[in-house]
Amino acid sequence: MPYQSSINFPVNPENYQSLLKTVFEDMAPYSQIPGHPGFAAYVAGAGNFISNTAQLIAQTLNPFTGHYMMAPGLVTLEMEVIKWFQHMVGFDERGSQGFLTTGSSLASMSAISMARKEKVVGFDYSNVTAYTSADAHHCIAKSWAVLGFKKENLRLIPLKNFKMDTTLLNQKIEEDLARGFKPFMVVATLGSTKTGAVDNLKEILPITKKHNLWLHGDGAYGALFMLTDAGREILKGINEVDSVALDPHKALSIPYGTGCLLVKNKDHMLFDYLSDDSYMPPRPVDQVDYADITPELSRDFRGLRIWLPLKTLGVGPFILNLEEKLKLAQWLALEINSIKDLEVISNPELTILTFAHKKGNEETKKLMERINNQGTLFLSSCTVDGKLAIRFCLLGFRLHYDRLQKALVEIKGMV
Amino acid sequence: MPYQSSINFPVNPENYQSLLKTVFEDMAPYSQIPGHPGFAAYVAGAGNFISNTAQLIAQTLNPFTGHYMMAPGLVTLEMEVIKWFQHMVGFDERGSQGFLTTGSSLASMSAISMARKEKVVGFDYSNVTAYTSADAHHCIAKSWAVLGFKKENLRLIPLKNFKMDTTLLNQKIEEDLARGFKPFMVVATLGSTKTGAVDNLKEILPITKKHNLWLHGDGAYGALFMLTDAGREILKGINEVDSVALDPHKALSIPYGTGCLLVKNKDHMLFDYLSDDSYMPPRPVDQVDYADITPELSRDFRGLRIWLPLKTLGVGPFILNLEEKLKLAQWLALEINSIKDLEVISNPELTILTFAHKKGNEETKKLMERINNQGTLFLSSCTVDGKLAIRFCLLGFRLHYDRLQKALVEIKGMV
Repeated sequence: MPYQSSINFPVNPENYQSLLKTVFEDMAPYSQIPGHPGFAAYVAGAGNFISNTAQLIAQTLNPFTGHYMMAPGLVTLEMEVIKWFQHMVGFDERGSQGFLTTGSSLASMSAISMARKEKVVGFDYSNVTAYTSADAHHCIAKSWAVLGFKKENLRLIPLKNFKMDTTLLNQKIEEDLARGFKPFMVVATLGSTKTGAVDNLKEILPITKKHNLWLHGDGAYGALFMLTDAGREILKGINEVDSVALDPHKALSIPYGTGCLLVKNKDHMLFDYLSDDSYMPPRPVDQVDYADITPELSRDFRGLRIWLPLKTLGVGPFILNLEEKLKLAQWLALEINSIKDLEVISNPELTILTFAHKKGNEETKKLMERINNQGTLFLSSCTVDGKLAIRFCLLGFRLHYDRLQKALVEIKGMV
Repeated sequence: MPYQSSINFPVNPENYQSLLKTVFEDMAPYSQIPGHPGFAAYVAGAGNFISNTAQLIAQTLNPFTGHYMMAPGLVTLEMEVIKWFQHMVGFDERGSQGFLTTGSSLASMSAISMARKEKVVGFDYSNVTAYTSADAHHCIAKSWAVLGFKKENLRLIPLKNFKMDTTLLNQKIEEDLARGFKPFMVVATLGSTKTGAVDNLKEILPITKKHNLWLHGDGAYGALFMLTDAGREILKGINEVDSVALDPHKALSIPYGTGCLLVKNKDHMLFDYLSDDSYMPPRPVDQVDYADITPELSRDFRGLRIWLPLKTLGVGPFILNLEEKLKLAQWLALEINSIKDLEVISNPELTILTFAHKKGNEETKKLMERINNQGTLFLSSCTVDGKLAIRFCLLGFRLHYDRLQKALVEIKGMV
């Protein structure tokens, strides 16, 4: 890049137009743009222009939304958005509570810390264990480390049909209990990053209930499919988990920096820590301040960039987008299986599918490079069952049948 | 408020103009606006319009900046901003590293988790202790709880002249060591929320070095005064701490949601957690991906809203604002002390000062209500030495001598 960084604060004012030119011509073009119609590489939403305006308004008002009393109208707006999500997953809107985060990584980290507070006695975590699948997102392992647990005490349960093997889950918990470990939590993956598979909550719930474990659902990608009939079927049991993380910046096409944590019992969100905070505004009588239940205090006002597009368009177009992507994924799997030399590795449960060249990793790698060089679609790869696979993730509202059809014709010509 | 929330996603599209009217007329007016020229109530920056445009651009591009390879130009821009801060505090720009957060709460939480990883052996935290002052911001105690430590093991060291009493700090550490506790960290407050006092780093550093403790500076409010001569004098030693949190959304007039953590030794930022993340893009050869050193993965792109105003205006106006506020605070203290029946409780070291009515809490409370009803200034209160005090925090770039002078005349008329 032609731009030269400096370690010193800029001393001289620079021309605003030239700076924008630098951003738009020298910096931004190198970026992957999830809003591009052909973007199907990672689990990302397309963003939307109403949210962008909402964010301009939010940052211009620059309110402090960590405490109700400092912006009661705008906090009420944010609370409404969160109630939509609480209601969507089937949580009672009075007993449960939630907050917006920058993404599911921080949402799941908060859930793990709440689970520890509720379920673990004492402060010796040497033998404290939690359970998630081998395909859990790596943010779970990262949070586990940041929160001060022992790496190997996060048990990565093997998969069966791309989902956590619940027989092995139960076995491992009982084995750990017999060996003196202290299980306190299971993290179910509600839509895995690699294959989109949703762990079977109906099988996991009896296990967590039997052993009194906190069940967290990492629904960063998948939980918002509760807006669709197919999703509600696949996610059955989500109303019984203790907490759910979800990312409006994925399946709801909100710009980046917009995640959410929902907790079934709002009392579980309160940590005992308050020392003198007499410099803060008075607390509301019948409401919880977000700053009291999240690790953040001051933060950007996130609610408006969900509220404004949903209120303006209604939820209909957002549901239609997900229903379209669910159907396209099913159709795409059939089409790819019909191409000689290609095989679907994981069929789509939601809108992610992986496939590979039958001749092996080298050919798969070459094929992906050829597809990405073509420019119709941008795909990425991952390792499934030790095999390199090309991954489609369909979420963007600008990606439709016509482009996928065109890409399929091109792919047929490549193999 | 006339607005009625619903627990259901909105079904019908609503008129965009009416929705904006609801936001601007029914919701926003209830909010405290830190950008108002008379806002001196909390430790908040005024925001600025160049950042608002920057944020509109950032959200419209909607890049993924957690990994260098996905937006190398824009990540380079964000890295430049962080290097300005590294250089400002005197950290070596190659050996140190930093990242932008939503605010200092999360920055300090990350620092505490890194300190634990570097300094604590094993996973039994029952006797692990850290030290901060009685006037530390309550986010330190919150992080302490969220990270799984025992509440009373965060030792709140009493104050001497509003700063951590370093004699008592040393005593407490040695007493704890003798009793079998395991001290690992000191959090120095670099500009307290109540009085703006800066803990004496030159006195704390020999203690943390002697006992091999991680020293974190919570400079949410104060660290950016390193841009001024007075600040550099007061903050001497900041280049030797292990980590610093600072909030561009306070002293640098950037909108909310913009904090920063700087770590002197970048190797201390890496946690050992990686499982299979084959679905992620390739890592850069000579750079660290932000997602590898922060608890976040996807998040909003924060760099541009610091970079664009600083590059457009140069750092000069930002420094001038802080220098003006430093001088105004000194002058204000003299003026208030000259008013019969009022007394300054804490003299300003930076730009916060507290004062009270000599007749006691009731009169102080009444006076604050009268000042706030007047509409010239918006102030808040806190408890200093068990006494109710009215607090000025001068940071906003729209607050100048003329308004303070007017307010003083009004206050004289009230007492």
